[in-house]
Parts: sequence; structure tokens; C-alpha cells
Amino acid sequence: MAEPPDPIREAIRQLKRLPGIGEKSAARLVYWLLRSKDGAANDLAAALAALGAGVAECGTCCNLTRDDPCGLCADTRRMTTTVLVVEQPQDVEAFERSAEYRGAYHVLHGAISPLDGMTPDQLRIRPLLERLRGGTVTEVILATDPDIEGDATALYLARLLQPIGVRVTRLAHGISVGTEIEYADALSLARALQNRVEVS
Amino acid sequence: MAEPPDPIREAIRQLKRLPGIGEKSAARLVYWLLRSKDGAANDLAAALAALGAGVAECGTCCNLTRDDPCGLCADTRRMTTTVLVVEQPQDVEAFERSAEYRGAYHVLHGAISPLDGMTPDQLRIRPLLERLRGGTVTEVILATDPDIEGDATALYLARLLQPIGVRVTRLAHGISVGTEIEYADALSLARALQNRVEVS
Repeated sequence: MAEPPDPIREAIRQLKRLPGIGEKSAARLVYWLLRSKDGAANDLAAALAALGAGVAECGTCCNLTRDDPCGLCADTRRMTTTVLVVEQPQDVEAFERSAEYRGAYHVLHGAISPLDGMTPDQLRIRPLLERLRGGTVTEVILATDPDIEGDATALYLARLLQPIGVRVTRLAHGISVGTEIEYADALSLARALQNRVEVS
Repeated sequence: MAEPPDPIREAIRQLKRLPGIGEKSAARLVYWLLRSKDGAANDLAAALAALGAGVAECGTCCNLTRDDPCGLCADTRRMTTTVLVVEQPQDVEAFERSAEYRGAYHVLHGAISPLDGMTPDQLRIRPLLERLRGGTVTEVILATDPDIEGDATALYLARLLQPIGVRVTRLAHGISVGTEIEYADALSLARALQNRVEVS
């Protein structure tokens, strides 16, 4: 019978897999968890275990959610005629913080990036097209990140959506080029929404 | 019945409790875990859950371990006549990396720091005195951090151990003042061990 792995080593090994956490940081966190008397390790373990089991994609907007449809899709006070398309779930949260947008969202879960192996068919484009087929959506706002991948994705979507006859707009460059939407400030995001421009 | 907390919010909240991880970093880590297809969240959750259950202090050296006595105390090839006293379990690992020391360890689990509420009776000083009472230990090397708390702890221990008649030494200042032992390089630690000096 193989000896079970040392719990401390194993916890360090697992924490090291996270982006931005190296060997020394992982060790620090593990020893901090061991020192904390209030069950921080067990609370964190339970929270992480619940992540996989309790979270799935919303059948409508593809955002990560515990409920299907998600809280935003189920909210009858929101306009369903406008769909704002973002790369990641965090981007939805950023727009919600700006309190400027009261329409629907659609989460692509990435951007087209052939070098990283992200092709259009890996994004949630098909569910978006199905939503538009319903006929209630009159405008699609493309809010992908203002970088190469985001611009390529927006261009791809704009061409794909043109034949459908829906109005396709992009965020104005109120957000500085190179910024990730997740980290943009609420005011810039609000301005970018107000000044959104038609995609020809 | 209270609604269960949103799994994503709860995971972010728990990760935020860790030192050096803020709201945005926690959100990044959670979404990274949600994106990773290979069960990273569950592996990490299992590893953290095992931490609390599978780790306790060694009855001899007070280091954190899965077994009692720990692997270092159980190793019959190590000298039991010398005990190297450190503040934290990470310091034991640092000395083991330096491969200079082949004696026993003792982990205090902290340093005297009245401002932080760390008094001598919270450190594992009593188990150290019990070890010395056995009579096999001839030298105690004080390897606390070279900062105010570490120096105060070393001075306190030196005075406490003097009546016992054991040789008490401190690490030479081969390690630069202000450095934490955990982060010292192996060579400096080895030099500091070689040049250790008698505590008067």
C-alpha cells in the first residue's frame, strides 16, 4: 500500500497550481492556515468543494451561476432587447458595478486566440445565435476586451451577426487600450457604454 | 429556511481571508478554478480539508507533522545531543535545505512579542525544558529570527537555560539582520551554523 502523501506537502503542491502563487507563497498560506485557530482551512476547503458542485452555466446567458436561469436573466425589471456580450463572468460583475447597464448579458467564456488554442467554436457563440433567433433582441453590444483577442472576437461576431439584422454596437474607447474590463473603473465603463458606436 | 450563500461569493470571501490575497486576486483565483477542467478546485479542497485533520504537533520537537514522533525525531541517524530551536516549522525546512545540520530541532511556534500578545507561556518552551531534563542534550542552538522579537526570545531562553548547565549558542550573524530565516539562502544558513557563537 502506498504511503499517503504528507498533508502539508500536498496542500502546498495544490496551492502552487494556482496562477501567481509560487512555492514560498503556497508554503506561507499553508502554515498560516495551520496556525489559524478558527477553522479557516476547513471553511476554505468547504467553499472550494462547493464551487464545482454548485456552479454551472446559465442556460440563457452562459454566465456562471448556482441557479438556472441566473439572477440577472430571471430579473424581469431588466430589458431583454439588448444583449451585452463579454468574455468572462468577471466582466458582468464589472458592468453591474458601473450601474449603467440594465439589459441582458451573454458570456463567451474566452476570446478568439488561435495561439492559445481558443477557436470560435469553443466560445458560447451558438447559444448567443439561438437567443437572437427568438427575435426579441434588437441590439447586441460587443464588450470584449480592447486587446488583439478581444478585437478579433468582436470583428468575428459583428460579421456573424450582420445577416441577422440586429443592431451591433461596440463599447466606445472610453476604456483605455490595453486595460482588461475586469479591472476598469466604474466611471470609465459607464462612459464607454454611453458613447458606444455602431459597428458598420 | 435561509438561502444558501452563492458558492462563488463564498469561495471569494474565504480566499480573501488568506494573507496577501485581496478581493480581486480572490476572484481571479476562483474563476481560474472554475475554468480549470481537471478538478483543481476539488483537489485543492481535499488537500486543505486534510490539513486540519492530518497534521498535529510532534510530541518531542513540536514541529507540525502527520506522524508522532515526526520523521526528523524518528530518524536514528540524527544526533540527539544538539537541539536547534527555531520559531516556525518553515525554519526547520530552511535548515534541512542547507544540509549543514544533522541534530534535533525544537519549534517554538512564535517569538516573544508583547505587542502581538505573544508571551513566553504561549511558546513551546515547557516541552523544550522537559527534553533537556532527559540529560542527553548537551547543546542548544538558538536560531530565532534576527529581529527584535527573535533576539528577545533568544535572550529569554538563554537566561532560562543557563541554570540547566547545557551549552547555549546562537547563530552567527552570517544571516543579514532583518532577514527572515525562512527566506535566507542555504549557503548563508550553513555559514551561520558554522560560525555560531556562545551565548554568555
